[in-house]
Amino acid sequence: MRIDVITLFPEFVRQCAAVGVIGRAQERGLLAVESWNPRDFASDNYRTVDGRTCGGGPGMVMLIAPLRAALAAARQAAAGTARTIYLSPQGVRLTQAKVVELAQQERLILLCGRYEGVDERLLAHEVDEEISIGDYVLSGGELGAAVLIDAVGRLQEGALNDAASAEQDSFANGLLDCPHYARPMQDELGDVPEVLQSGNHAMIRRWRLKQSLGRTWLRRPDLLTRTSLDKQSRELLQEFRREWL
Amino acid sequence: MRIDVITLFPEFVRQCAAVGVIGRAQERGLLAVESWNPRDFASDNYRTVDGRTCGGGPGMVMLIAPLRAALAAARQAAAGTARTIYLSPQGVRLTQAKVVELAQQERLILLCGRYEGVDERLLAHEVDEEISIGDYVLSGGELGAAVLIDAVGRLQEGALNDAASAEQDSFANGLLDCPHYARPMQDELGDVPEVLQSGNHAMIRRWRLKQSLGRTWLRRPDLLTRTSLDKQSRELLQEFRREWL
Ligand SMILES: CCCCCCCCNCc1ccc(CNC(=O)c2csc3nc[nH]c(=O)c23)cc1
Ligand SMILES: CCCCCCCCNCc1ccc(CNC(=O)c2csc3nc[nH]c(=O)c23)cc1
Repeated sequence: MRIDVITLFPEFVRQCAAVGVIGRAQERGLLAVESWNPRDFASDNYRTVDGRTCGGGPGMVMLIAPLRAALAAARQAAAGTARTIYLSPQGVRLTQAKVVELAQQERLILLCGRYEGVDERLLAHEVDEEISIGDYVLSGGELGAAVLIDAVGRLQEGALNDAASAEQDSFANGLLDCPHYARPMQDELGDVPEVLQSGNHAMIRRWRLKQSLGRTWLRRPDLLTRTSLDKQSRELLQEFRREWL
Repeated sequence: MRIDVITLFPEFVRQCAAVGVIGRAQERGLLAVESWNPRDFASDNYRTVDGRTCGGGPGMVMLIAPLRAALAAARQAAAGTARTIYLSPQGVRLTQAKVVELAQQERLILLCGRYEGVDERLLAHEVDEEISIGDYVLSGGELGAAVLIDAVGRLQEGALNDAASAEQDSFANGLLDCPHYARPMQDELGDVPEVLQSGNHAMIRRWRLKQSLGRTWLRRPDLLTRTSLDKQSRELLQEFRREWL
């Protein structure tokens, strides 16, 4: 997979993509991340990339011309058609389902905005979709791109080790993960729950599912309304709620 | 404001905080970001920070001792009590309301997990809240911390220039932003809408509100159900919908 990022902070994006799982995926040749700076495609001596908002009001807007030239250069740099995504607080919210879909593309181009955003005419003609990473205000699209690259990159075959890949599936059930513990079994801060020390794998599975259900109910009840629980899950959640009250 | 980050990738977090608005806020002394590596607080020769999940299953869990020591060091490094936040996919979702609340704190400590996460006993004793930045799976908490630092940092007084600060308020109405345009008024990709060239500020305000309402309806209908629209907004949205169909 190849991801090209159009950004006024190319070094920042490069550094984000050099770390951890994504850095390793790049070293293994599973993923290539390249950055393009619209400033390098500005045609005036000041290398202007922004202008005042038409109609008045605070803030600047990113100009069409440098972005179009940067996009054209990115598209020409490699074979294949690339889906072009604009990271913006006006986009639809990123979900893991969207991440899975995007991870199957061979090429992506990510456009990062700064200031108030990008001239709407460029978006209408050159962008396939607009994505937000959440309902909070960031200072630009770069962290959005970094989040998307991380989420999509770790799904590339071979990026995660086997254990992590297996764990991946646990997302599919739409519940939050259960608590985890490691040695020491006894610690100043408390003991590992007995069931996890029991070696009884059926009981352990039951306990973990119950904790996942309980946590999801406490912290993300919205996720429960979307999932249809089977009989065992309904009973385990009932049990958790009774013990909670 | 001071933010201490506990992370296995201290350089990554430092670099994230050195860029753009947040970098400038640090230079202006409005914000200080420090990183602490639990590996530096591991007591064995291998500098072990993780162990197998009790009860079996794939993946590793971050150990209590190095994290406790790192947290203690971070807490001692500066005066004041710090709210401690664990970035995790099991957390409640970050919203701008939470960002505004956290921006008022004098100190924050952000704990970034890797692997399957952190031993639950540490979370129960040392963490005040658990926050997720969205419903997608990342490879660790660092990008979560970077997002939180950016969102909280840009709200520090003096971090944004005046124009941007003013714009900030537009978030408060709970709608998506309207389209923006810059020069040239005529372009290969189309013309700037006439109303924005008219100089009629009442009409411009009306057009922008209508576009904001229309986009929110199209892309984020969930936001509209939360907001109660006044009469003018209801009428403008009706108008937008009629023209859309
Ligand atoms: C409940 C959502 C309402 C959002 C309304 C925000 C209106 C703000 N317009 C000004 C603005 C333009 C561009 C930015 C820079 N942000 C991004 O480029 C961005 C790119 S992806 C993303 N995901 C979540 N939040 C974000 O801010 C972003 C920030 C503020
Ligand atoms: C619909 C939400 C369901 C989430 C269930 C995910 C269960 C995954 N457990 C394994 C796992 C542990 C830790 C990570 C690392 N992620 C973060 O540390 C993280 C920290 S903040 C955050 N926000 C959104 N997504 C995230 O993955 C994060 C990733 C996978």
